[in-house]
Amino acid sequence: MKVETLRWSDGVLEMIDQRVLPATFIYLSYDSAAAVAEGIRSMVVRGAPAIGVAAAYGVALEALRLLSVTDESFQRGMNEGFNTLAQSRPTAVNLFWALARMKQVWQSVSNESNRQVAMCLLAEAHEIFAEDIRINRALGSHGAELLRDGAHVLTHCNAGALATAGHGTALGVIRSAVEAGKKISVIADETRPFLQGARLTAWEMVQEKIPVTLITDNMAGYMMSRGEVDAVVVGTDRVAANGDVANKIGTYMVAVLAQRHHIPFYVACPLSTIDMSITSGVDIPIEERHADEVKGFRDFHWAAQGVQIRNPSFDITPAELVTALITEKGVIHQPDAGKLRTLFS
Amino acid sequence: MKVETLRWSDGVLEMIDQRVLPATFIYLSYDSAAAVAEGIRSMVVRGAPAIGVAAAYGVALEALRLLSVTDESFQRGMNEGFNTLAQSRPTAVNLFWALARMKQVWQSVSNESNRQVAMCLLAEAHEIFAEDIRINRALGSHGAELLRDGAHVLTHCNAGALATAGHGTALGVIRSAVEAGKKISVIADETRPFLQGARLTAWEMVQEKIPVTLITDNMAGYMMSRGEVDAVVVGTDRVAANGDVANKIGTYMVAVLAQRHHIPFYVACPLSTIDMSITSGVDIPIEERHADEVKGFRDFHWAAQGVQIRNPSFDITPAELVTALITEKGVIHQPDAGKLRTLFS
Repeated sequence: MKVETLRWSDGVLEMIDQRVLPATFIYLSYDSAAAVAEGIRSMVVRGAPAIGVAAAYGVALEALRLLSVTDESFQRGMNEGFNTLAQSRPTAVNLFWALARMKQVWQSVSNESNRQVAMCLLAEAHEIFAEDIRINRALGSHGAELLRDGAHVLTHCNAGALATAGHGTALGVIRSAVEAGKKISVIADETRPFLQGARLTAWEMVQEKIPVTLITDNMAGYMMSRGEVDAVVVGTDRVAANGDVANKIGTYMVAVLAQRHHIPFYVACPLSTIDMSITSGVDIPIEERHADEVKGFRDFHWAAQGVQIRNPSFDITPAELVTALITEKGVIHQPDAGKLRTLFS
Repeated sequence: MKVETLRWSDGVLEMIDQRVLPATFIYLSYDSAAAVAEGIRSMVVRGAPAIGVAAAYGVALEALRLLSVTDESFQRGMNEGFNTLAQSRPTAVNLFWALARMKQVWQSVSNESNRQVAMCLLAEAHEIFAEDIRINRALGSHGAELLRDGAHVLTHCNAGALATAGHGTALGVIRSAVEAGKKISVIADETRPFLQGARLTAWEMVQEKIPVTLITDNMAGYMMSRGEVDAVVVGTDRVAANGDVANKIGTYMVAVLAQRHHIPFYVACPLSTIDMSITSGVDIPIEERHADEVKGFRDFHWAAQGVQIRNPSFDITPAELVTALITEKGVIHQPDAGKLRTLFS
């Protein structure tokens, strides 16, 4: 089964509800910027590239929704739509990258009719969608060369088809390696509290018959100490100009362990995820989400009542722990400020 | 509320059912070695010292149960009881230590009547119980001196009153520091898959109004990187003769992170947990438990169907990562084979 995380259908955006996977597979429909923003906030859709694509469609949907209002109301409504989407989640830079790109398109056709504007915005959203898949394929084939035949590859969270428009970034590297004929087996951290590893990565791999072993997050060190991990590949929500990597909470711990065990730690990273405006990881905003997520899972709360909760959703892996960034333009070994500057010059 | 993890009541052993805490607080009754062994295996009772105490009572219960049989049946039944208990869980050495001690008592009174044997075994179980609390109090007061007033102390799993006959080992250190007038706040790793941190440690600390913050296991590195952890204190299931520490899965990851951040990593360790017959951590048997525990929690399974599962229940922290062992005889800084040999000589 091909996973269509987001799809345009009859004038609405449909997204797989990732909160209820894998037990329930349903699409939810979205017809406005505010609705898409809520879908992002509540994690119906998640994963930095998928959030960017969803936001782009959110802008197009808002333009379509406002077709019949006055020009002034259209302007005001669109600006509100942009703002609402920008406030949905703070860490993944792809969100802001996609919104900036959509705003540029809007400005470039601002003399046209509202209908024309809406059509251009929708075309751009479609292009961002298609481009994301092309980028993941390019990135995947570069990354695939780094994995040896027979490798056991540990991944954290889900940077798969469900985190992108398709193919995936970290899982894109694994898919491309498998397509290239390599035998790869995946070790998936379950990734508390939202369990993206247990629910999403495991599900994607089972769908494609790629061998996958699920562990709890605290087992990664044990697996490495026993020689059962050959490489780590993860995605990222934002990379700073010096190569520091923001990714799902727990990534930093995996990176520290990988260094100790001399296991390569790769970050699959579309160029749109690199934020050259941020000098280092300490300046990347880290979202703290609701306490309920840590108290249990969904409505099942097992934690003792009266306990305080922390719920940072991301952490920062310093560039020194990153063996390589895998981008659509190629592999950047031991990333640093100089190499990233060169990449964008 | 004083937590009585195990208690002798009217000829049976009662144990809090730790599988259903904190939502449900109930005692289950045990009247034979086989029943106690099943209680240990299924984790009604857990924590190395508590397992040792439970096993001792299991031996006494078996003797009481077999009072009216022939001498030959008594011998056979008791040997079976010892074997069943020894096979309940493999990693915590306190189990084998307690069984060896009970067997010695049995042998020392083997000329007596079965009733006399049973009474001696029950007295010894009571003594192991009382001794455990005395040891934890001694260990706690040594450890308390290592924690500064105002310290934020991270702990993994539950090495509290619920893991012992009372007071606790790691949480005993924290309790003793609080009793000594220090302001301590606890950060509890939730400790997947059995969630001892979220359910048991958090519950114990809330009961005693010691401030406690719950995090998922993968957040420990983030908290350390932000300077929010001053010390780590954990328990242990077995320490090898060279100071390597077996403890709940994930402990190793915490220790590696603590070293990176120059945070002291303390192991609260009754002498009965040190196994001088095992040279190093690689020889400590690591239990792998049932896959269902990792698929979800209790009957709620969220993992994708068809995924393979690993479920090692413990890992090994090499001695080089241990700042100190805290024992009832005092604190052993940078433990190694020489220091442990001296301790037992």
